[in-house]
Amino acid sequence: MRQDEMQTVMKKAEVLIEALPYIQRFNRKIIVIKYGGSAMLDENLKQEVIKDVTLLKLVGFKPIIVHGGGREISGWVKKAGMEPKFINGLRVTDKPTMDIAEMVLNKVNKSLVTMVERLGVKACGISGKDGNLLNVEKKYSDGKDIGFVGNVKNVDTKILHDLLDKDYLPIVCPIGMDDDYNTYNINADDAATAIAEALEADKLAFLSDTPGVLKDKDDPASLISELSVSEAKSLIEDGTIEGGMLPKVKSCISAIDNGVHRVHILDGRIEHCLLLEIFTNKGIGTAILSDNEERYDEQR
Amino acid sequence: MRQDEMQTVMKKAEVLIEALPYIQRFNRKIIVIKYGGSAMLDENLKQEVIKDVTLLKLVGFKPIIVHGGGREISGWVKKAGMEPKFINGLRVTDKPTMDIAEMVLNKVNKSLVTMVERLGVKACGISGKDGNLLNVEKKYSDGKDIGFVGNVKNVDTKILHDLLDKDYLPIVCPIGMDDDYNTYNINADDAATAIAEALEADKLAFLSDTPGVLKDKDDPASLISELSVSEAKSLIEDGTIEGGMLPKVKSCISAIDNGVHRVHILDGRIEHCLLLEIFTNKGIGTAILSDNEERYDEQR
Amino acid sequence: MRQDEMQTVMKKAEVLIEALPYIQRFNRKIIVIKYGGSAMLDENLKQEVIKDVTLLKLVGFKPIIVHGGGREISGWVKKAGMEPKFINGLRVTDKPTMDIAEMVLNKVNKSLVTMVERLGVKACGISGKDGNLLNVEKKYSDGKDIGFVGNVKNVDTKILHDLLDKDYLPIVCPIGMDDDYNTYNINADDAATAIAEALEADKLAFLSDTPGVLKDKDDPASLISELSVSEAKSLIEDGTIEGGMLPKVKSCISAIDNGVHRVHILDGRIEHCLLLEIFTNKGIGTAILSDNEERYDEQR
Amino acid sequence: MRQDEMQTVMKKAEVLIEALPYIQRFNRKIIVIKYGGSAMLDENLKQEVIKDVTLLKLVGFKPIIVHGGGREISGWVKKAGMEPKFINGLRVTDKPTMDIAEMVLNKVNKSLVTMVERLGVKACGISGKDGNLLNVEKKYSDGKDIGFVGNVKNVDTKILHDLLDKDYLPIVCPIGMDDDYNTYNINADDAATAIAEALEADKLAFLSDTPGVLKDKDDPASLISELSVSEAKSLIEDGTIEGGMLPKVKSCISAIDNGVHRVHILDGRIEHCLLLEIFTNKGIGTAILSDNEERYDEQR
Amino acid sequence: MRQDEMQTVMKKAEVLIEALPYIQRFNRKIIVIKYGGSAMLDENLKQEVIKDVTLLKLVGFKPIIVHGGGREISGWVKKAGMEPKFINGLRVTDKPTMDIAEMVLNKVNKSLVTMVERLGVKACGISGKDGNLLNVEKKYSDGKDIGFVGNVKNVDTKILHDLLDKDYLPIVCPIGMDDDYNTYNINADDAATAIAEALEADKLAFLSDTPGVLKDKDDPASLISELSVSEAKSLIEDGTIEGGMLPKVKSCISAIDNGVHRVHILDGRIEHCLLLEIFTNKGIGTAILSDNEERYDEQR
Amino acid sequence: MRQDEMQTVMKKAEVLIEALPYIQRFNRKIIVIKYGGSAMLDENLKQEVIKDVTLLKLVGFKPIIVHGGGREISGWVKKAGMEPKFINGLRVTDKPTMDIAEMVLNKVNKSLVTMVERLGVKACGISGKDGNLLNVEKKYSDGKDIGFVGNVKNVDTKILHDLLDKDYLPIVCPIGMDDDYNTYNINADDAATAIAEALEADKLAFLSDTPGVLKDKDDPASLISELSVSEAKSLIEDGTIEGGMLPKVKSCISAIDNGVHRVHILDGRIEHCLLLEIFTNKGIGTAILSDNEERYDEQR
Repeated sequence: MRQDEMQTVMKKAEVLIEALPYIQRFNRKIIVIKYGGSAMLDENLKQEVIKDVTLLKLVGFKPIIVHGGGREISGWVKKAGMEPKFINGLRVTDKPTMDIAEMVLNKVNKSLVTMVERLGVKACGISGKDGNLLNVEKKYSDGKDIGFVGNVKNVDTKILHDLLDKDYLPIVCPIGMDDDYNTYNINADDAATAIAEALEADKLAFLSDTPGVLKDKDDPASLISELSVSEAKSLIEDGTIEGGMLPKVKSCISAIDNGVHRVHILDGRIEHCLLLEIFTNKGIGTAILSDNEERYDEQR
Repeated sequence: MRQDEMQTVMKKAEVLIEALPYIQRFNRKIIVIKYGGSAMLDENLKQEVIKDVTLLKLVGFKPIIVHGGGREISGWVKKAGMEPKFINGLRVTDKPTMDIAEMVLNKVNKSLVTMVERLGVKACGISGKDGNLLNVEKKYSDGKDIGFVGNVKNVDTKILHDLLDKDYLPIVCPIGMDDDYNTYNINADDAATAIAEALEADKLAFLSDTPGVLKDKDDPASLISELSVSEAKSLIEDGTIEGGMLPKVKSCISAIDNGVHRVHILDGRIEHCLLLEIFTNKGIGTAILSDNEERYDEQR
Repeated sequence: MRQDEMQTVMKKAEVLIEALPYIQRFNRKIIVIKYGGSAMLDENLKQEVIKDVTLLKLVGFKPIIVHGGGREISGWVKKAGMEPKFINGLRVTDKPTMDIAEMVLNKVNKSLVTMVERLGVKACGISGKDGNLLNVEKKYSDGKDIGFVGNVKNVDTKILHDLLDKDYLPIVCPIGMDDDYNTYNINADDAATAIAEALEADKLAFLSDTPGVLKDKDDPASLISELSVSEAKSLIEDGTIEGGMLPKVKSCISAIDNGVHRVHILDGRIEHCLLLEIFTNKGIGTAILSDNEERYDEQR
Repeated sequence: MRQDEMQTVMKKAEVLIEALPYIQRFNRKIIVIKYGGSAMLDENLKQEVIKDVTLLKLVGFKPIIVHGGGREISGWVKKAGMEPKFINGLRVTDKPTMDIAEMVLNKVNKSLVTMVERLGVKACGISGKDGNLLNVEKKYSDGKDIGFVGNVKNVDTKILHDLLDKDYLPIVCPIGMDDDYNTYNINADDAATAIAEALEADKLAFLSDTPGVLKDKDDPASLISELSVSEAKSLIEDGTIEGGMLPKVKSCISAIDNGVHRVHILDGRIEHCLLLEIFTNKGIGTAILSDNEERYDEQR
Repeated sequence: MRQDEMQTVMKKAEVLIEALPYIQRFNRKIIVIKYGGSAMLDENLKQEVIKDVTLLKLVGFKPIIVHGGGREISGWVKKAGMEPKFINGLRVTDKPTMDIAEMVLNKVNKSLVTMVERLGVKACGISGKDGNLLNVEKKYSDGKDIGFVGNVKNVDTKILHDLLDKDYLPIVCPIGMDDDYNTYNINADDAATAIAEALEADKLAFLSDTPGVLKDKDDPASLISELSVSEAKSLIEDGTIEGGMLPKVKSCISAIDNGVHRVHILDGRIEHCLLLEIFTNKGIGTAILSDNEERYDEQR
Repeated sequence: MRQDEMQTVMKKAEVLIEALPYIQRFNRKIIVIKYGGSAMLDENLKQEVIKDVTLLKLVGFKPIIVHGGGREISGWVKKAGMEPKFINGLRVTDKPTMDIAEMVLNKVNKSLVTMVERLGVKACGISGKDGNLLNVEKKYSDGKDIGFVGNVKNVDTKILHDLLDKDYLPIVCPIGMDDDYNTYNINADDAATAIAEALEADKLAFLSDTPGVLKDKDDPASLISELSVSEAKSLIEDGTIEGGMLPKVKSCISAIDNGVHRVHILDGRIEHCLLLEIFTNKGIGTAILSDNEERYDEQR
C-alpha cells in the first residue's frame, strides 16, 4: 500500500473509532424516525436515508421508520380523475381519497421494505391496522369535518415489540382505525410522535424539509442546535417559533414530556443528516431535550 | 327456558361436541388458505370466510391467508386511464400495471387485516417483500414476455414462523421480488402452494369459484369427494381434469409431493365451506391426499 | 350433498361461528369446575360432562376439575362391613372411614383421568396431597368432633400452575393434609372454591343437583339467571336462599370477593349444561357476579 | 466443644466429603427405584427408604419411585368379602379385584407422597393412567386368562419429564390402560423396568426381600457384588439363577440392553441400602452392568 | 460384608441422612465465603476447605469464594528487592507494591480454581476488575495516605449472577478499580462483606485464625455460639469485643443490617469447620444473626 | 456549520456507510484475536488495539482476545533475581519461572480487562484454568525437556460460550493444565489457534511484529494480500516462507483445515490494522483462506 493510500484508510479507521462512544450509548435503544418530505422524493437521498437507518440497526440500535406518502398521493388522486375538495383551505379526505391514500402509502411502505431488504436486513412493513397498532378518533379542523383524518387515541405497541424482538426493522405507514374499524389517514409527524411516546423511545427524529429551529427564520445560519423544553416554550411565546415549525416543536415538547429522551429536527435534504446528528459532535439540526438533561456539549 | 328453546340450545351443544375430534386432530397445525374469487367480492361471504378463519385460529389451528386481488385490479387500471395490453391473449403486467396491482393488493390485504382485528384476533398483513418472504424469477408464457409476473423460486419462511410464534394471523398478498429486487405479481394459487410446501403445512385449502373436481364437468352432482394423487394423475391423463381445473390439481399434487398432508378444493361461494370441510364428516369439496394416507371415511 | 343435508351442515357451521365470541373472551382463562352429584352417577351424563370440559380445554380454556366421591364412598364403607357413626346427625369420618374415602376418591379420580385421556387430551389426576396443594385444619360441627374433616387453610397453587403450563387438564380430589400431615376429607364445594380463589380463576362452576337459585324454591320456573353479590346477600337475609343452597351461595360470594370473576350454579342433570352456560346467550343456571360487573344481557 | 464431641463431628464431615465423588458422578441423572416387599410393610423401614430417596433428590439426582401394593391388596379383598379365584395357582384379577387393587395402590401412592412432602420436598403421585404413561396389553399365564393383568406395551414419558422439569419427585403406581382404556394391574418390577428403559435411566434399583444374586442360594455370604450381562446369562444357563430371582435378573438384562447404565438388586430389609450402594465403595447388593462397562472396583 | 463393616457403612448413611434438613434449608442459597489466614497456608487445610466448598456446591448451594493473598504478597515484595514503607505503622501500598499484590492475588486465585476444577466442578476466577465487579474509592488511615488501598463503593453483581447462572463456582480476588480505573487492593473481609450485602446472600462465612467471639479472650472455652446484632453491640460497648475482632464483628453487623441472613466467624484452622457449622447441630464458631431471627437451638 | 466543516462530517458519514456491508457480513460471528508483540508494549498502540476490538464488539461481532505476556515476564524473572536457564538455546520454564510467568500473564490480562471496561464494555479475563478451558500435554523441543511448556490437547469451549452468551468480551491468557492439574505456559499463537479451531471461529487474526507474508522477505512492498491454503503450502515447499513465519503460517493452515473461515496475519505496529483489514477493501496484512473460498477482490 502506498503512503497516501495508507493515510486514507487510516482516517477511515479513525472515523469508525470516533463513532464508538455513540454506538455504545445508544446500544439497543429505540429510535423512531419520521421520514418524509424531499428526502422521500429524490431517489438518491432515499437510498442514503435507508442506508443510514440500516447502519443504525446493524450497529445495535432499534430503529423504527414512520413514513409519509409525500406528493405521490396527490398524483394518484389526479390520475384517478378525482377532484380534490377543500374546506377552509384544507383538503378533505373523503372515502375515495382515503382509498387512494391507503393504496399509495402501502406502496411507498413496501418500496422502503424493498430497499432495506436489498441491504441484507430483515424489514417488515406494516400499517397502523396491523396488530391494531394505531387506534384513532376523528380529527376536526376548527370544528369542520375534513373527512377521514384521525388523531391517535391509543397505540398498541405489541406488534412493534414483537417485530423488534424477532429482529426486524419495522416500517410503519400512518394509517389507523377508529373504534368502528373505519380507516383514517394520520399526519406522519403525529403518528411518529405517538409511537415514540408509547414506546418511551430513546430518540425521535423528524427528517423534513427544514434546517431545524432558526432564531431568524430567514437566516439559515441562525440555527439553534439545542433547545430545552422551557426554552422552546419561550420561543413559542415570543413568536420566534411559528408557522409550520409550531406544530412540529409542540410534538417535540409532547414527546419529551412523555418519556422520549431527545427529539431531533433534521434537514432531510442533507445527505446522512441522521448519522451526522448521532455520530458526530456537531449536530446539524435542532435537538430538543428536557430541562434537566445534560447538554450535547457536556456529553460529547 | 321453554322446552323448545331448550331443545335448540341442546342441539347447539351437540354441534360443538361433534367438532371436538376435529379440533383435536388439527391442534397447532398450519393451514394455508388461498382466498380468492367470488368469496372476495361478496361482502357478506367475505365476512363469513374471515369468521371461519378466525374461528380456526381461536380453536388452536395456525391459519395463514394468501389472497388474490380479484377484479379490483382491473377496475383501478381502468380508473387510472390505462389501456390493458395483451400478448397471446394474456394480459401483460408492465411496470405501471404492476404499480397499480401492488397498491390494490396491499389495500385488499389491509382490509382483510381490519376484518380479523374487528373480531378481536391479532393479524399482520404482509407482502412477499416483507422479510424477503417470496423470491421469484420471471415467468414466461410460451416463451413470450408477459411483464412482471413471477414464479416463486424460494420462500424464506422466517417471517411466517415469527408471526405465528407471536400469535398473529398472517395475511399474505402474492407479490415477490426477484434477485435484483424488482417487484413481481404472483398467481395467488402458486403463492399459496409455494408457502404451504415450504412450511410443510398440514393443510392447503383453495377457496375458489368451483365446486371441486367433477367426474362430469357439466354435472355438479358428480363431485369427487376424495382423490389420491395417483387417481388425480389418471384423471388428468384421461382428460377428465382439464381447463382451469388442470393447473389447480397440478398444484395440489405438487403440494402433496412436497409434504403437505391434504389439499382441499372448496367452493368459496358456499357459506362456511371451510368449516364444513374441516368440522363435519361430509366434506363439500374435493380433498387431494397422498396414495397411502387414510381416507376420510375411515378417519371420520 | 342433498339440499336438506346441506342445510343441516350449514346450521352446524353457524353454531360454531356463534361460539366464536365466547371462545375469544375466555381464551387462556382458568375455569374451576366442581363436579359432583347425579352428573357423576349416570354413566352417560359423566361422558357428556367430560366431553364438555375437554372441549373447553381444546378451544383454549384452562379447566380444572374438582370432584366429589358421590355415593361410592358409602357403598364401600358398607362393603367393608363398617358401621357408620353419627354425631348430631352428621356422619363421623373416623380413620377407617377416611381410609376408604381416600381410596374411593382416588379411584374416581383416575376414572375421570381415563375418560379425558380417551378423548385424546392429557390429564393428570392429583389429590390435595400432591405438591402439598391443600393444607387443612380440623373442622368442627357446632363444636363437635366429626373426625378427619378439614377446612382449607392454605392452597399451594404451584402444582396446578405447573400442570397447566405443561398442558395437562388437572383433576383434583378433595383430600388434604394438616400441619402434621394427617389425611383429611374436604367438602368438594369448599375445595373447589378455595382453589378458584387461590388461582383468582376467571370462572368457578358448580355442577350439582339443583337448577340454580330459585325465587320460589318450589317453582323451577322461578330460576334467577343472574345475581349480583349484594342481591344474593339480600336474598339470604330475607330467607329466599336457605337450606342446602345457603352454603353454596355463601361460597359463591366468597369466591367473587376473592377475585373470581363469575360463579355459576348449574344443574348437572342437564346435558351440556356447562357448554350451554358458556357458549349461548341464554344461560341455564344462576350466575353470581360482583356488583360492578357487566350483566350477561349487556355482554352478550 | 469437648475433644470427643469434636472427633464425632469431624468424622461426620469426613463421611460427607467421602460422598462427594458419588454426588458428582450422578448429578442430574435419573434413577428409577422399584420399591416393594418388606421395606413397604415396616413403618420404620418405610421412613428410612423415603429419607434416602429424598436425600438423593436433594443432592442432585432425579429419582422416580415405582411402588407395589404389597399385602394391603389381599387384606382389602378379604375385607370386602370377596373370594380370591385362582387359575393354575395364579390369582385371577377379575374386575372387582382390579377395582380394589387400584384403590389400594392409589392409597399407598398418596401415603408415599405424604412422607416425601413431610420432608419438605415436592412430590406428585401418579398412576400409569395419568398422561397415558403406561399403555399395556393383556398378559396371559401359559395361555390362561388371569384377568386384568397387563404387560407394558408403550411408555409415554412426557409426564415424567414434565414432573422432573418442574422439580417434583414422581411416585408411580403400576396401573395402566390398554388401547380400549380398560384398567390393568402391572407387576411393579415390570413397570419400573419399562419406565427405566423408556427414560434410558442411569440407574434402576430393585428394593426387594432378597440380598441380591447368590452363588449358593442357601448361603447369604455368597453374594455376587457385580455381574456383567454375559456373566448373568451364564448363571441363568447353568441354573445358579432360578426361581423368583430369574425374572428379576431377566429384567435387569433387558434394562441394560435398552440403555440403562447399571441395575441394582438390593435388600430392602437393610436400612439405607440405597445410600450404601450409591455412596460407599462397598455395595451391599448385586449390581448388573453391561459387559464393557467399568467395574466398581476400578471406578471407586 | 462383615457385621462390623456393616455397622461402619450404616453409620455413614446416618450421617448423610442427618445432613438432609440442612441441605434442604439452604438449597440454591448464596453463601459468600471469605477465605484467608492459616487455612490458606497449610496445603492440607487448603485441600479440605476447597473440598468443603465444592461439596456445598454439589448439594445445591451457590457458594462464592472471596480470598486474601496471605503472606505470599510480602514474600514476593521481598523477592523483588523492594523495601516496605510504613506510615503510622501501616504498610503503604505504593504502585510497585500494588503491581506485586495484584500478581500474587491472581496467582492465588488461579491456584484455587485449579483445586476446584480438579474435583470436577467448574470454577471461574475473577478479580473485582472483571465485569467492573468492585468499584472503590481511596481509603485513608486516620487521614494518612496509605496508597492504593480502597473501600468498596459499589458492587456490580451482574458477573456473579451470570457465573452462578451458568453453574460456575466464582472465586474472587479482592482487587477493584476507582472511577478513573486505577487499581486498588481491598481488605478481603471488606470485599466479602460488600459482595454478600450486594447479593443479599443467605450466609457470609469468615474463615480466619480465630475460634470466634470469646467472652474471655484468653479462654477458648468461652466461645459464644450465637450472637444477635444487639447482643454484639452490647459486647462492643462493654469492651468484650475489641482488637482484631472489632472490625470483623462490625462487618458482621453491617452484613446483617443489609440483608444477609446469618454471618459465621469460623476457625479456619479446624478441618471442615464450614461443613461442621452448616451440617451439624453444634456449630463450632460464632454465628451472628438479626435480633428477630430464630436461634439455632430452636431451628435445629 | 461552515461549508468545509460540513464536508468533513459528510466524509465521516460516508466512511460509516462504507463499513455497512462488512458489519453485516460478520454480524454475531466469532473472531479470535491473538494479541502480542509491539502492539502490547507501546501504550498508545495498546489503547488503539483495545478500541478496535471494542468497536468490533459493539457493532455486533463476538471478539475473543488471546494475549501473550511480552517482555514483562523476562523483566520480572530478572527482578526476582532468577537466572534464566537454557537448553539448546531455548529458555527452560522451570517451576519458579512458571510461577512468575503466570503472575505476569494474569496481571497483563487484568490490565486489558481494565482498558475494555473503561470503554464501557463488559470484559471477563480468564486463564486456560478457568472452566478447564485449556487442557495441555508437555511439549518437548527436539526431545529435550524445556519445563512447563505445553501443547493444547483439548479445549473445553463451555466457558467461552457462556461468557459470550452473557455478553462479555472474553480475554484469555495462555496458561493451561495437564491431566494432573500442573500449570503450563502455552505459546499465545498456539492457544489462539486451538481456541479458534475449537469454536470454528469465523476469523482468527494474529497481531504481531510482521507486515504479513512477503514474497521477498527483505522487501516489505512484496506483501502477499491473499493466500489460499495450497498456495501457502507451495510457498513453504519452495522455501519462500521460512524462519519465524513458518510456524505462524502452519497455524493458519491448521486453523483453515479445522473450520476457521479466514486467518489474518497483521502488523500490530500499524494503528487500527484490525479495523483496516476488516472494514476496508484493501487489507493491510496477509489473509489465508481455503482453496475454494471466494477471494477478497470478488467479495469486496
